[in-house]
Amino acid sequence: MQYKNLDSAEAFKRLCAISHVSVKQELTVDRLKAYAMDAGGGLTYHYATMPVNDAIIDELQKLADEQQLLEKYDAVLSGEMMNPGEKRLVLHHLTRGQILGDVIADGENLGEFYRTQLEHIRSFSEKVRSGAIKGSTGKTFTTVCQIGIGGSDLGPRALYLALQGYAAGKGIKQLEAKFISNVDPDDAAQVIASLDLERTLFVLVSKSGTTLETLTNRDLVLDAIKESGIPGIIPGKHMVAVTSNTSPLAKDEGMLDAFFIDDYIGGRYSSTSAVGGVMLSLAFGYDVFQELLDGAHQADTLAREKDIRKNAALMDAMIGVYLRNVLYHPITAILPYSQALIRFPAHLQQLDMESNGKHVNRNGEKVGYPTGPVIFGEPGTNGQHSFYQLLHQGTDIIPLQFIGFHENQRGKDITIQGSTSQQKLNANLAAQIVAFARGKDDENPNKQFEGNRCSSLLSGKQLTPKALGALLSHFENKVMFQGFVWNLNSFDQEGVQLGKVLAKNVLSGCKGDPVLKAVSDLL
Amino acid sequence: MQYKNLDSAEAFKRLCAISHVSVKQELTVDRLKAYAMDAGGGLTYHYATMPVNDAIIDELQKLADEQQLLEKYDAVLSGEMMNPGEKRLVLHHLTRGQILGDVIADGENLGEFYRTQLEHIRSFSEKVRSGAIKGSTGKTFTTVCQIGIGGSDLGPRALYLALQGYAAGKGIKQLEAKFISNVDPDDAAQVIASLDLERTLFVLVSKSGTTLETLTNRDLVLDAIKESGIPGIIPGKHMVAVTSNTSPLAKDEGMLDAFFIDDYIGGRYSSTSAVGGVMLSLAFGYDVFQELLDGAHQADTLAREKDIRKNAALMDAMIGVYLRNVLYHPITAILPYSQALIRFPAHLQQLDMESNGKHVNRNGEKVGYPTGPVIFGEPGTNGQHSFYQLLHQGTDIIPLQFIGFHENQRGKDITIQGSTSQQKLNANLAAQIVAFARGKDDENPNKQFEGNRCSSLLSGKQLTPKALGALLSHFENKVMFQGFVWNLNSFDQEGVQLGKVLAKNVLSGCKGDPVLKAVSDLL
Repeated sequence: MQYKNLDSAEAFKRLCAISHVSVKQELTVDRLKAYAMDAGGGLTYHYATMPVNDAIIDELQKLADEQQLLEKYDAVLSGEMMNPGEKRLVLHHLTRGQILGDVIADGENLGEFYRTQLEHIRSFSEKVRSGAIKGSTGKTFTTVCQIGIGGSDLGPRALYLALQGYAAGKGIKQLEAKFISNVDPDDAAQVIASLDLERTLFVLVSKSGTTLETLTNRDLVLDAIKESGIPGIIPGKHMVAVTSNTSPLAKDEGMLDAFFIDDYIGGRYSSTSAVGGVMLSLAFGYDVFQELLDGAHQADTLAREKDIRKNAALMDAMIGVYLRNVLYHPITAILPYSQALIRFPAHLQQLDMESNGKHVNRNGEKVGYPTGPVIFGEPGTNGQHSFYQLLHQGTDIIPLQFIGFHENQRGKDITIQGSTSQQKLNANLAAQIVAFARGKDDENPNKQFEGNRCSSLLSGKQLTPKALGALLSHFENKVMFQGFVWNLNSFDQEGVQLGKVLAKNVLSGCKGDPVLKAVSDLL
Repeated sequence: MQYKNLDSAEAFKRLCAISHVSVKQELTVDRLKAYAMDAGGGLTYHYATMPVNDAIIDELQKLADEQQLLEKYDAVLSGEMMNPGEKRLVLHHLTRGQILGDVIADGENLGEFYRTQLEHIRSFSEKVRSGAIKGSTGKTFTTVCQIGIGGSDLGPRALYLALQGYAAGKGIKQLEAKFISNVDPDDAAQVIASLDLERTLFVLVSKSGTTLETLTNRDLVLDAIKESGIPGIIPGKHMVAVTSNTSPLAKDEGMLDAFFIDDYIGGRYSSTSAVGGVMLSLAFGYDVFQELLDGAHQADTLAREKDIRKNAALMDAMIGVYLRNVLYHPITAILPYSQALIRFPAHLQQLDMESNGKHVNRNGEKVGYPTGPVIFGEPGTNGQHSFYQLLHQGTDIIPLQFIGFHENQRGKDITIQGSTSQQKLNANLAAQIVAFARGKDDENPNKQFEGNRCSSLLSGKQLTPKALGALLSHFENKVMFQGFVWNLNSFDQEGVQLGKVLAKNVLSGCKGDPVLKAVSDLL
């Protein structure tokens, strides 16, 4: 396998020489039909409003081939050490299905390991939901409260919020889920105040078992249970751990149960492991979680296609590289027209920015081109009434990634002025795509829209667990492919270490660093 | 008054010629003490980790003077027509106090008008909170549900979430507030399912009384009340309107009450009017809302200082211009180390991007320099476990705006490993400021931090209503000053109109536009 920087790739040099495309001029009905492809899980990826044409796509294919993206993905799937910074395998795909068969590492069959964990999640969650496992005072559990931060919070929380409406629409019995993440004590205090502690099962998530924020919040919770004065309540019997089997938490006999992950699942890629699976299976039942895994597996499989025109994650990734490295756009907005996806942009923000927000390549050499963009977003139509002004008429062009569904989740709607709310929602989405692309001339320059503001769309019939799994995997694989193009290690996060070290220094008196002391005295 | 573009200002040309500053090299204890100033409401603005020095600040002062920022602010306060695109006055400052005396417009004393509305808010909210005004089935109200979108949602929601912990810490009786905003029918369905309709008071907010999303959601709510089958319930008696006194809603006799704003209060600047005031006074009592107004008024008054070194909003604005137009940074991250400010970045996103995301000046001429940046953010320490990787080690520099407080709101905390959670939170904030500024050398390039990543800090003792009001006003005035520097009209939003027109076209069959039809068929 060859690892080389983007700017040393011959295809990249040719790509930079191709004339740019005007979306405004090129957008036709035929193009809309041609530039659409299956993205797995019932989703379709549309890129007719992206500034590419067949010549550019052909060159993006050659760039993908030259940078050996599919070979590198195969290396991930087959258990090669693809996180060289931390000397680890990268096995999150293995949590949803064994595309290339099992992976044996450290003398263990890890496919088997994850299947065993899944079976444990299934049986445990069924017992809790049926009432066979109860709280320590004999009451059934009605609420799950996840304690975790970063990847143990953002992805699972986004997925939970995305499926609440689906479960309600299908009449699936739900345990409500809540989340404590921030070390700010007001976060835990607010959530704890809203809980019926006798009926709450806490899911403590920390891979290392040493995450300071998470352990602190655990102790705040255990304290609150003790101080509740509820006769006979046993705090540990209201808590399970999700952790690596070598962590201190794994050996904590006081807890109700424990579920395991390993060092080969990075936090931001861990939603399909026990990190997301325990909470989601408790909240909606194991079958819903399994459907999500199936959708993710479907998109994972699709991402193995060598032909860029049959591989939506690859197409999305390579167009993103074109936007970043040829057109120099530093930002991408994620705009789901689905209230259920309210926190999905926050998950993608971590996934993308933590994976590819790096300026040295996998060998530690500084690269001479921009890498991962800044990601932000809010659901439409809310965003339309907020920051879309800048997207339409600001001085910079911000590429847009829309997401939309034909049907809503809950099945409750109303017809007003001849259309349902869902029709209004989607009319707005379609209108925005066209408005951004084509703009509008006006003799009043204040009402002039230049257009040529590019976007893509991921669409589906409904946001089901399967569609959600495919959506999650689509972006994970997109980010992975982009990391390969940029020759980065997308699976470590050294950029977060310095802050941790300095925070410890502050807590231990600033160790003779007068500037650190002076800054900490500001607060 | 003179209106001219930034690039025609002499001070700007001189500013571009001054040598840049290395935060990494310049950061000292003395500089930290010198580069700090009162921001009103008990807040302090610190800019020692911004890439400026006395020479640059002197030139920023001259640029502010040359662009007549303070004169233009006075023109706003005295009721001149400062929103020329829509031919409107800009009177949101008048909702918190009369700095320059009352404003008379359209034959009316508008200072008096807003005071009357405030008095109405006070008396109504007191009656609801005391139980003198009850629901139509005779039960007291325990929940407020705001129906609104954009400025009628983001600001009020951010302020409500910011004060919940404060009220809990002070033992103030609370009515819970909920919010329906998105036209996605799943949004309303989810909120409605969580309500005790007999005890819920809906606050319907639409200045024009014609906002499609909001009227649709109103009808979804009224339908749900009718279909609830609760004997004797009268839907209109569970709803008040906040609207302009010329809107169709103002004349709706079926509603419990109505509160008025006027066309001189832009949506994104309306949180301190009845748009935020009715809900906040119902939730926390009028006194809390009045304290918030006092804090905003204090910061408004401070913003009248001509000396940039005594005017924190002006300093923040001018440093922002320096970052955007001399150093060419297109993004700013808002990073509150306070869980209570979880949605404050979303409010600032609208405030800033909708106000200054424009590429024509107030005369409709295209400008040749970048204007408003993209704004995004999440609370720390959560962000540290997410996108900070890119902030530390990405290929672009993202300026950072930190916010932090000495004390938490709820007063519940725990000491673990020798420090409280609040101390850990603030140790992390201090550590990040230093880490971003100074970086760290390491022989492993993957662990190398280049530093020179600039930030500012707004700090205070506690997030009280007064501090929150000052914080809100600080950013409003910052954005206003920047709009003046860039010679924009920060108070209109023509960029959102085209999408509305096209959405109506979609709903009425696409009016023979085949591309629009084809895009709408994708969904």
